[in-house]
Amino acid sequence: MQARSKVFLFLLSFTGAWATPLNLMPMPAKVAPLPGRLTIDSGFRADAVGISDHRLADAVHRLTARVVRQTGVSLIARNAGNATLTIECREPVPTYPAVGEDESYTLDVTPGGARLSARTVTGALRGMETFVQLIAPGADGFAVPAVHIEDRPRFPWRGLMLDVSRHWMPVEVVLRNLDAMAAVKLNVFHWHLSDDQGFRIESKLFPNLHQAGSDSLFYTQSQVRQVVDHARDRGIRVVPEFDIPGHTTSWLVGMPELASAPGPYEIQRRWGIFEPTLDPTREGTYRVLDAFFGEMATLFPDRYFHIGGDEIEDAQWKHSAAIQAFAKEHNLADSHALHTYFNQRVQALLAKHGKIMIGWDEVLAPGLSNDTVIQSWRGPDSLAEASRQGYRAILSAGYYLDHLQPAGKHYGVDPLDGAARLLDADQTSRILGGEACMWSEYVSPETVDSRIWPRMAAIAERFWSPRELRDAESMYERLEAVSRGLVWVNLRHRTSYQPMLDRLTGGEPSPALRVLADATEATGIEVRRDARHYTSLIDLNRFVDAVRPESDPVRRLERAAVRRSPADLAELRATLREWAESDVRLAPVAAGNPLIGELTRLSRALSAVGAIGLESLDFIETGKTAPETWISERLQRLAAMDRPEAEVMLAAIRPVRLLVQAASAGNQGVFRR
Amino acid sequence: MQARSKVFLFLLSFTGAWATPLNLMPMPAKVAPLPGRLTIDSGFRADAVGISDHRLADAVHRLTARVVRQTGVSLIARNAGNATLTIECREPVPTYPAVGEDESYTLDVTPGGARLSARTVTGALRGMETFVQLIAPGADGFAVPAVHIEDRPRFPWRGLMLDVSRHWMPVEVVLRNLDAMAAVKLNVFHWHLSDDQGFRIESKLFPNLHQAGSDSLFYTQSQVRQVVDHARDRGIRVVPEFDIPGHTTSWLVGMPELASAPGPYEIQRRWGIFEPTLDPTREGTYRVLDAFFGEMATLFPDRYFHIGGDEIEDAQWKHSAAIQAFAKEHNLADSHALHTYFNQRVQALLAKHGKIMIGWDEVLAPGLSNDTVIQSWRGPDSLAEASRQGYRAILSAGYYLDHLQPAGKHYGVDPLDGAARLLDADQTSRILGGEACMWSEYVSPETVDSRIWPRMAAIAERFWSPRELRDAESMYERLEAVSRGLVWVNLRHRTSYQPMLDRLTGGEPSPALRVLADATEATGIEVRRDARHYTSLIDLNRFVDAVRPESDPVRRLERAAVRRSPADLAELRATLREWAESDVRLAPVAAGNPLIGELTRLSRALSAVGAIGLESLDFIETGKTAPETWISERLQRLAAMDRPEAEVMLAAIRPVRLLVQAASAGNQGVFRR
Repeated sequence: MQARSKVFLFLLSFTGAWATPLNLMPMPAKVAPLPGRLTIDSGFRADAVGISDHRLADAVHRLTARVVRQTGVSLIARNAGNATLTIECREPVPTYPAVGEDESYTLDVTPGGARLSARTVTGALRGMETFVQLIAPGADGFAVPAVHIEDRPRFPWRGLMLDVSRHWMPVEVVLRNLDAMAAVKLNVFHWHLSDDQGFRIESKLFPNLHQAGSDSLFYTQSQVRQVVDHARDRGIRVVPEFDIPGHTTSWLVGMPELASAPGPYEIQRRWGIFEPTLDPTREGTYRVLDAFFGEMATLFPDRYFHIGGDEIEDAQWKHSAAIQAFAKEHNLADSHALHTYFNQRVQALLAKHGKIMIGWDEVLAPGLSNDTVIQSWRGPDSLAEASRQGYRAILSAGYYLDHLQPAGKHYGVDPLDGAARLLDADQTSRILGGEACMWSEYVSPETVDSRIWPRMAAIAERFWSPRELRDAESMYERLEAVSRGLVWVNLRHRTSYQPMLDRLTGGEPSPALRVLADATEATGIEVRRDARHYTSLIDLNRFVDAVRPESDPVRRLERAAVRRSPADLAELRATLREWAESDVRLAPVAAGNPLIGELTRLSRALSAVGAIGLESLDFIETGKTAPETWISERLQRLAAMDRPEAEVMLAAIRPVRLLVQAASAGNQGVFRR
Repeated sequence: MQARSKVFLFLLSFTGAWATPLNLMPMPAKVAPLPGRLTIDSGFRADAVGISDHRLADAVHRLTARVVRQTGVSLIARNAGNATLTIECREPVPTYPAVGEDESYTLDVTPGGARLSARTVTGALRGMETFVQLIAPGADGFAVPAVHIEDRPRFPWRGLMLDVSRHWMPVEVVLRNLDAMAAVKLNVFHWHLSDDQGFRIESKLFPNLHQAGSDSLFYTQSQVRQVVDHARDRGIRVVPEFDIPGHTTSWLVGMPELASAPGPYEIQRRWGIFEPTLDPTREGTYRVLDAFFGEMATLFPDRYFHIGGDEIEDAQWKHSAAIQAFAKEHNLADSHALHTYFNQRVQALLAKHGKIMIGWDEVLAPGLSNDTVIQSWRGPDSLAEASRQGYRAILSAGYYLDHLQPAGKHYGVDPLDGAARLLDADQTSRILGGEACMWSEYVSPETVDSRIWPRMAAIAERFWSPRELRDAESMYERLEAVSRGLVWVNLRHRTSYQPMLDRLTGGEPSPALRVLADATEATGIEVRRDARHYTSLIDLNRFVDAVRPESDPVRRLERAAVRRSPADLAELRATLREWAESDVRLAPVAAGNPLIGELTRLSRALSAVGAIGLESLDFIETGKTAPETWISERLQRLAAMDRPEAEVMLAAIRPVRLLVQAASAGNQGVFRR
């Protein structure tokens, strides 16, 4: 009987059909709710038993501090009784995490206490995050519902790539994002450390690199060690990327002798693909890379080392007589062959320093060593191709955070989507997982948290949880709770929102500006790169930068517009009225302030959308049928407003479109419950 | 002509009647607006010229970082041209600030550049804060309006006292509050380090004090040095307080031999006045104090040393035969005489260690040395009495932040209020200034920022700016801007608000809870101490702890209810409707959640208040006169709701009361513009 109920609940976890929803993300592999609750109060204590490990001890301290922050309970009086949470870890393991290590854990919560068991410290770390997510207010204060959880990840490689070259990200940005990654069980931090716009790490062997190539914005080696230690203590591997041979302008500012064409070079301020490229034909290039890799190998203990290799613009190679002569001499038919030659040389150097090479799609070619990992930014086909050629691979296509797509869109992409069509079991087994990518053309240290989070948490669930878990509505409900929870790890994705809006008005209160911001969604690179002549010198302090990629309030209204209960209609009416009135309220603030002034058309559009919504609501609430012409005219007007304005989209259109459609007689029966 | 216009503008600064209001706080002594603006963009640079001083260099770095945070501009490209702001400092001074040092500065901003001149580094620090406050968005991005400012403080002692005993405040809380103090030109941090509930500093000579008396929550000596250095670099003196001979339970846990009655003692968990008191008759007491003062003198470079001395409960003295015998032998007629004897002995010890004694009202007695400073918590009369007896004095009565009174109330209290009635010029000159007090019975590290700020900024203006500046409306308008600006020094008074509300719902979104919170105001110690049996073990994580002492939105509605322009009426109607509907919207969230459940009556009351407001608005907008009986009945209902509920007050009543009054015919003519 018990076995049967476990299977049943196991299935429940796939459909998200909870009696009492647990705000877990990623959802564990098996969750069996039990009766009762474990109280979390000032007597809370977590104890680690079994092996002694500094990572575990530190994690217990962090867990305790997090419980205090998250609940506001005060832990002054430490009672001597049983621990609230006992953490049992069975095997000492190497302190630096590795691909494929055991991350499984079991968590048993009863009204009398909780027990977390794991073979490895990494597994225990994952289970502690689950425990923290389970804490919620209940009938007698904060508590954790009784539950039996068995959990392990689906993929061994679950990453976030952060570009710190195009916009510099100070070390505290990295540290707090590592904390957030740990909170959703991610285990790879891919650090994109060099690109045309900046060389971001101190090299003691080649100080010209960071001194000339970084605008003095680089990580010292001591900061790098701090980041690696911080990540390691949270069960996160750090994979450095030095993108070569293209995307290397910043290398060449201080070391033009590495280039395929004579210098001088300057730090690139624009975005795009540029010509400066390392010279793959000179031995001097490989001597420098050999020494540099050796230096970096002492800083980064991870087995994997990312060499980029994407988007080679081969103009310098084509225009160099020496390079062309070399290619002919070595039977390298074209630039692709030259690139592969370069990669093979680089791979040999990395192997010498004990490193396994990882590169973007473009490095894929026969003749690399078997352990090479391909990171696919192009899509399932190139992922499958890498795997078919015998390499391991991870997927990034579909997880580009800089496009500012909805979490649901990323959530719908699975690393194995192409495998079913294209691969056999053995080939499929070489797909290690995925990485989301935060390219930083349009993010600053101030905005980056809100561009990664909370959407990253949905992707983390895709990488960790059973593939069958695909219900976007359940995901979004849990995502909102998890997003609020991430505030307690000091992430600023929510707290920077209002201050950035306040800044636009110079400290003058403007509730109408908040109404507008809540009703809009920021666009990503695909819109912004055409919106104005952006460079790294253009400030990211406008409305679009404050606004979020996805509007929680609008999503709630979309749900309300589908359900249309009396409470939903009341909520809709209140917000629609706010929208309809907002333009009048914002106008005085906009006068003489170009930061608000650029929103004039957007604000007018919002009020128009609000008015259409109110009209629709009148039809719906009176049970009258809207005339066909009315409906088509309103839908046309909405469509006309559904385009970027001031680099944001008017998300408010979505629920109002649903209401207009509901105002037609046929739809009312369908939608109304 | 120019001289005359200066005088005119000088007067303007007293009345707050600005053409373009400058969001300065404290308002400088002289402000002369000039035509034009200085642009703040990615080319911003501040240079210090004149003397070389590490405090100044650090301050320039902080200023630059603050400009970046406050405006969101990116400073990657440093141009080689003229500095945007040149800071000229003429005299090297001792690096530790002193009472009465020169804090004056002159700031000249032109469209071509800004120049800050000061004799001392401290003056330059003050002027830099003024510069930062002047930055605002304008027609061509962020800018500082051209202006000539001459400024100096009215009082040399402008302080904030923080009680870290009743609730422990980690060092980061202290550091960020020092940053905020510097932002509003405060110059004394009074650190209340010991009380019945905790002994909060490491003593290497008497480790029993902090080890037994602090629940392991104390500042290490290295942290103390960090705080003192941090304060010094911002021109802030640190005055430590060790409250003796009463309020000493925490001392006696580890050193019961100092007590006036046999132990053992335990850390006090309740609030109030307690019996444990140092024994003033034993030489052993003075030997320990002598050594302890000596140890503390090495940590705190300030000349002043606070010995508390308030609220002596003399039961232990009265019940001790030995103490009574000693008193008789030494002609000490009563407990007050015994206390004075103690203070004289303590003062001699402090003098030996180079320290000047400061104490609360109760230490006032003839026979102390002339340099004694009396801190008056009782009021203007006792302040005046201290001054009449020849002592210097500072005022704290009227500045008790833990009462959670409106900023305007504190703003209306001036340290010289009693002087005009009671003192001659010489006596008046001994009034050094004032200190606001943050007693911590009802604040935690999480809530303390919102209990100090922004109200402290209004008090800072009282201490710094000309006495004639008294317009509360101007103060409130500037206070809102300054409050938003303080977010950029990492203060959490605004950013912790929504997360604390979210916590109550367990991460579920609840706009209705925010509506309720915005419409209410938290009560202070006078209400909360009678509301439940509070101790240091009771969590401060409820609605009342999230809610602010003063509601900005309600204050704006009060202004709107007085002005009643069409825009005001629209704003009022929108909010009144939200209030009227909020109870229905909150109800589902409250089910099964006692943290919300305790708000049931409050929420119902808000909706009732909203409904009354809407009725009033109907009268006002239709120009009809409300019947007398209607008015008196509605006012009665409002009065009945105007009392603490769930430890908060329904601030929403205030604007609605104004509307009800305006609905009577007589008032409409008076109020309407």
